[in-house]
Amino acid sequence: MTDASFDHRLAAVAAAVETALDALLTSEPEAGESARPARLVDAMRHAMLGGGKRLRPALGLAAAELFDVPPERALRACLAVECVHGYSLIHDDLPAMDDDDLRRGRPTVHRAFDEATAILAGDALLTLAFDVLSDPRVDPDPAARIALVRILARAAGFGGMVGGQMLDLAAEGRFSAAREAHDEAAVARIQAMKTGALIAAPIQMAAALGRADEADRAALGVYAHALGAAFQIADDLLDAEGAAETVGKATGKDAAAGKATLVDLLGRDGARARLETLTAQAIAAIAPFGARAEGLSSAARFVADRRV
Amino acid sequence: MTDASFDHRLAAVAAAVETALDALLTSEPEAGESARPARLVDAMRHAMLGGGKRLRPALGLAAAELFDVPPERALRACLAVECVHGYSLIHDDLPAMDDDDLRRGRPTVHRAFDEATAILAGDALLTLAFDVLSDPRVDPDPAARIALVRILARAAGFGGMVGGQMLDLAAEGRFSAAREAHDEAAVARIQAMKTGALIAAPIQMAAALGRADEADRAALGVYAHALGAAFQIADDLLDAEGAAETVGKATGKDAAAGKATLVDLLGRDGARARLETLTAQAIAAIAPFGARAEGLSSAARFVADRRV
Repeated sequence: MTDASFDHRLAAVAAAVETALDALLTSEPEAGESARPARLVDAMRHAMLGGGKRLRPALGLAAAELFDVPPERALRACLAVECVHGYSLIHDDLPAMDDDDLRRGRPTVHRAFDEATAILAGDALLTLAFDVLSDPRVDPDPAARIALVRILARAAGFGGMVGGQMLDLAAEGRFSAAREAHDEAAVARIQAMKTGALIAAPIQMAAALGRADEADRAALGVYAHALGAAFQIADDLLDAEGAAETVGKATGKDAAAGKATLVDLLGRDGARARLETLTAQAIAAIAPFGARAEGLSSAARFVADRRV
Repeated sequence: MTDASFDHRLAAVAAAVETALDALLTSEPEAGESARPARLVDAMRHAMLGGGKRLRPALGLAAAELFDVPPERALRACLAVECVHGYSLIHDDLPAMDDDDLRRGRPTVHRAFDEATAILAGDALLTLAFDVLSDPRVDPDPAARIALVRILARAAGFGGMVGGQMLDLAAEGRFSAAREAHDEAAVARIQAMKTGALIAAPIQMAAALGRADEADRAALGVYAHALGAAFQIADDLLDAEGAAETVGKATGKDAAAGKATLVDLLGRDGARARLETLTAQAIAAIAPFGARAEGLSSAARFVADRRV
């Protein structure tokens, strides 16, 4: 059963994120900029508005509650994470990558516009993410803002999300006739980089905004790692079981690409059991925070139970 | 005649940039990262090492001399600019963009590797640029580092370089049957965004590292704007006159794409005269700095006289 309290949280966060992104993605230039081309802004808005669960901002806001970080600051930091998430989807959908026509039930950016516009819209969103973090509204202390820049750059870069995407393409046998051997550890490592790093980022960023101590950061690290792994297994289960009309994107693609997932390696029952274990681990890790961690606990239950 | 002193500067800067990039682009992960995939690192190194004039770092270092900024700090900040420059070349060369096979006399990244790897290598370099700026070695004061993040993000984003690239594709008639009308102002605006913004960035960054006052920033702004415009006219003249073997990349592409340049609009003699005027403007703008501005003056003469 889906966790009702997190459903409510997600809806509230999604509305706030949508409003903030709508204001961010305009053709009105900021200081130091020229006018932003309308077609580029339209493509960025197509990718970023009107859809998405906004799970990452919801996680960042829930983590911010542990440290009394003002929610409007955490939200602004999480806009940067959403921009990185959005750019990664645009580029992943490109013909040279996963070649997807549909995303959240709508045409992907290169289908709604064209390939060149999609490449540039992704590039612009990735760049905008760091512009957002330079804004004093994220935190009046520049030291906190530059800490967020580092966290996001490492989560998204060649030792994080982009590196994971590269390993994922290699796992498809894209670059050699012989596909690389897959075991659980290898699959888990790819997933931790490809999706886990950007799920952990808003949580780490909230901890930095909250001046969390080492012990709290370590506890949140355990939580984020378990949650990211659980999220991916839930995603793989949906891919194995789901239908395109429910998920709003093509399913069964992993099988078609011949990619091993933990569902293949563990079976569906094994994968469900692993999902439960990871969820319990995540919730246990944040138990020391007490009642303040209710948001993060309900997030973990939501991820375990999600059907879309 | 090429300015000899700037030739020497460029050679020294290029050697230092090459060494620093070689150390930066390794598969050894930093804190908060997983192991970086070898193929991705190889593609990034292919794009970034063993070529390039390193004009942008040379400009940053010359500007740093005005304010006694330690050169090792300015150099590190300029690595971020080089990463952005390198990523933009990788993505611009893609089949969906300019579709180039050759860059600096070597295969472009998508030819030497493949298209997916090229997209990801560009994404990783753009992300790495901001990681570099988060490093205390750029400046011990976080306020200075976050100021550089903002400068670079605005120079590179949808109101800067990426926006200019979008307008440039539109100017080719890529998105509508009727090509947009071109006049001098429109062409100059596209070029100021597409190439001018990232030529100005290292100069603005050096001013921020040097805690320059408003008057000095304004003078450098005039210099950078004139220099960027001069650079583009020199580039257009090379494109119109040059041969592929000299420039190391395909030439005559602007004419083939039907794009108007200032050389088309002003004629070669008119463009040469404009180039001289802009160079004089750039040098006049920095005259108040006296002998310390010799590096920037010689850079302006170098740009005006360049043959490759």
